Amino acid sequence: MKVNRKHYQTIWTDKIYPKYFSIINQNKLPFFFEIKKIYNYTETINAISTMEVRGAPLIGVTGAFGMYLAVIEAIDKFNKTEKIDNFLINAAKKLSNARPTAVNLSSAVMKSLNLLLATRKIEEKKKISFTFANLLAKKEIKSSKLIGENGYKVIKNLFNKKNRCINILTHCNAGWLACIDFGTATAPIYKAHNEGLDIHVWVEETRPRNQGAKLTAWELFNEGIKHTIITDNAGGYLMQKGLVDIVITGSDRTTLSGDVCNKIGTYKTAVAAKENKIPFYAAVPLSSFDFGIKNGLEEIPIEVRDSNEIKFAEGLYKGKIIEILISNEHSSCYNPGFDITPAKLITGIITENDIIKPNQKEILKLIKINKKEVAE
Amino acid sequence: MKVNRKHYQTIWTDKIYPKYFSIINQNKLPFFFEIKKIYNYTETINAISTMEVRGAPLIGVTGAFGMYLAVIEAIDKFNKTEKIDNFLINAAKKLSNARPTAVNLSSAVMKSLNLLLATRKIEEKKKISFTFANLLAKKEIKSSKLIGENGYKVIKNLFNKKNRCINILTHCNAGWLACIDFGTATAPIYKAHNEGLDIHVWVEETRPRNQGAKLTAWELFNEGIKHTIITDNAGGYLMQKGLVDIVITGSDRTTLSGDVCNKIGTYKTAVAAKENKIPFYAAVPLSSFDFGIKNGLEEIPIEVRDSNEIKFAEGLYKGKIIEILISNEHSSCYNPGFDITPAKLITGIITENDIIKPNQKEILKLIKINKKEVAE
Repeated sequence: MKVNRKHYQTIWTDKIYPKYFSIINQNKLPFFFEIKKIYNYTETINAISTMEVRGAPLIGVTGAFGMYLAVIEAIDKFNKTEKIDNFLINAAKKLSNARPTAVNLSSAVMKSLNLLLATRKIEEKKKISFTFANLLAKKEIKSSKLIGENGYKVIKNLFNKKNRCINILTHCNAGWLACIDFGTATAPIYKAHNEGLDIHVWVEETRPRNQGAKLTAWELFNEGIKHTIITDNAGGYLMQKGLVDIVITGSDRTTLSGDVCNKIGTYKTAVAAKENKIPFYAAVPLSSFDFGIKNGLEEIPIEVRDSNEIKFAEGLYKGKIIEILISNEHSSCYNPGFDITPAKLITGIITENDIIKPNQKEILKLIKINKKEVAE
Repeated sequence: MKVNRKHYQTIWTDKIYPKYFSIINQNKLPFFFEIKKIYNYTETINAISTMEVRGAPLIGVTGAFGMYLAVIEAIDKFNKTEKIDNFLINAAKKLSNARPTAVNLSSAVMKSLNLLLATRKIEEKKKISFTFANLLAKKEIKSSKLIGENGYKVIKNLFNKKNRCINILTHCNAGWLACIDFGTATAPIYKAHNEGLDIHVWVEETRPRNQGAKLTAWELFNEGIKHTIITDNAGGYLMQKGLVDIVITGSDRTTLSGDVCNKIGTYKTAVAAKENKIPFYAAVPLSSFDFGIKNGLEEIPIEVRDSNEIKFAEGLYKGKIIEILISNEHSSCYNPGFDITPAKLITGIITENDIIKPNQKEILKLIKINKKEVAE
C-alpha cells in the first residue's frame, strides 16, 4: 500500500541474492517511518521477537528470508554440505522459536529447511532459499488480494441490505503491515473502499501493544478510510447500541475444527458479537491454518510476553518514543498475547479460496487446495 | 483503609463547620499520595469532573459536601433566604451535572437541596447540609461493610466447594477509593482476606484511565492481597483457561429491572463470564440504585469523555506525571465511559441488605428498606 504516495511492501529485497533484506520497523510506527536492513538470521530473530515485524503472514515470510540469510552465513563460514546443513538446522530451530503462536513462522521456516536439506549442492541452497522466500511473499500477496475480493462480497451484501454506511469493527492489526501487502482483515475493507462503498471502521486499540491504535489507524488514515479508534472495552457497548454491523479480524493460527487463535481480546469481542447477533468473520490465508490441530484451547502454544508491556506504555513525547509507568509499580502482571475464539462463535472464515464455515468438513477441502499449491 | 500504616478515608473534614473538606487526589495515584483541600462548590465540580475524586459512592458524598460549601459561600454573599436559595438551586444544578452517569451524585445533591429549601433559617442551612454530608458518608461506610459481609459468604462458599485459592476478577476500581472506606466490589475481598481465606485477584487494567492498574492494584498491594494486573483483553482468556472463579464489579447506576451500568468494558467481561459459566456479581449499595429507571440501555445517560484519554496515556516518567501519544495522531477517537450489563448476565447483586437476584421483584423490596432509611 502507499506511504506518502510511494508504494511499499512490508518486506523486500533490492536485487537477486542480496546481502540483506529490508523491513519497515513497525515499533516506530505511526510516529516514524523507519526502514531497517536485516543482515543475518540472528538479526531476523531479533526483528521478529521484538515485533519490528509482526503479523502471522509477515513473520512467516520474514522467517523464510531469515533462512536465506542463514544460508549465506553458512556458506561464508563452511564449505562442506554437512556443516552447512547443521548450521541451517540450528538456525531453523531458533528462527521457528522466535515467536510461538502464529503457525506461519515455523511452517515457513521448516518448509525452507526441508527444501534446503533435499539438495547437497551448496550454491543451489542459496537459490532455493531465496526463491522460496520470494514465492511465499508473492503467494501471501495473492492470498490477501483474493481474501479482499471474497470478504468484499460480505460487506457488499450488508450494504445492499442496510443501504447506509456499514460499520466494521476490527481488533489488532491484520492489515497490510501484518502481511506483505493489502492485509487479511483489512483486505475486504480496502476493496470495499475502492469500490466506493460507504464504510466506517471501529478500530479497537488492542492493548497492551496498541497495534489497532498505532498501526491499523495509521493504515486506514493513509488510505483515506473513515475510522474511529476506541478502547477494547468500548467494542461491546457499540454493539449494544447497534453501531457495529460486522466484525472482521485476522488469525495467527486456525485449527482443523475452525477454532481461531488471534490477538488477545479477540475472544471477548467475538463473544460480545455473538451476544448481539453481529456476524463475526476471521480473514485467514491458507498459510495460517494448522491442519494438524483440532482443539485450539488445548493445543495452540500461547505466547506469554513481558509484563512490562502492560506496566508501561510506549509512545511519543517531545519528538521521542519513550516508556512511562501506567500502573502500580509493585504489582505483578500477566501478559498472554493471544486467545482462542472457538468455531461456534464464528460466522465464517474468509480464505483466498472461498468463505467457509468454521468446521472440519469445509476446512478439509482446503487441505486439498493447500496440497496442490505446495506441490506447484 | 491504611496508607503507610495510617488510616484514611477518601474524603473528610477536620472539624465541625469547616471552611474546606479534604480529598485524596486520585489522579496522582499510585505515583504520589497527595491530599487536596476543596474550598468551594466550583472547586468541588472541578474535582469531580477531572476525576480527582471518582467512584459512584464517593462522588455522591463529594456532591453533598459541595452543597455544604455552596451554603457557606451563599451565606457569605447574601443575607436573604431567597437569594441564598437561588444560589443553592444553581449550585445544585451545576454540581449534579459534573458527571452524568452515576446516580449517586445527582441523588445526593438533590436530597441536600430539598432539605435546604425546606428551611428558611439561614444558620440552619449550614447545619443541615453539613450533617447530611456526614451522615451520607457514614451511611456509605456502613453499606460497604455490610456488602463486604454479604459478598464474603459467596467467596466462602466457593472456597468450601473448591478447597483451593479462589480467583476473583474485577474491573475498574470499586475499591475504598471509589467509596468512603472498604469499597463495594473490594469489600468482600478485604473481608475474605481478613478471615484468612486464600484468594487471588485478577485486576483488569481498565482502559482508558487504568483505574484497575493504578488504583485497585495500589489498594490491594497496600493491603497485602495477592493480585495480578492483566489487560482488559486478557480477562476472557483467563476464563477460558479456568483461571477465574468469580467476577465482582461495582456499579454506577442499577435499574429497577437489575441492569447494571458500570465502567466501560464491564459488559464484555460479563458476556465472557456468562459464556464460561462463571458467576458474575455486582456489588451495589442502595445509593447506586435508580428505582425510576427500568431499561438501562435506553435510559441511563452515558458520559462520553475526552478523546485524548484514549489518544494519550498518562503515567510516570523521570519522577513526573506526563502524557504521551499512544495512537495515530490524525485519527479520531470515541470514548464512552460506561456500558450496561443487562440483568440476564448477572448472577446476583450484593447489597448491604442481602444478595438479591437482578429482577424487579427483589429490587422492589429494596425500595421499602431505602424509604425507611431515608425517613430515619
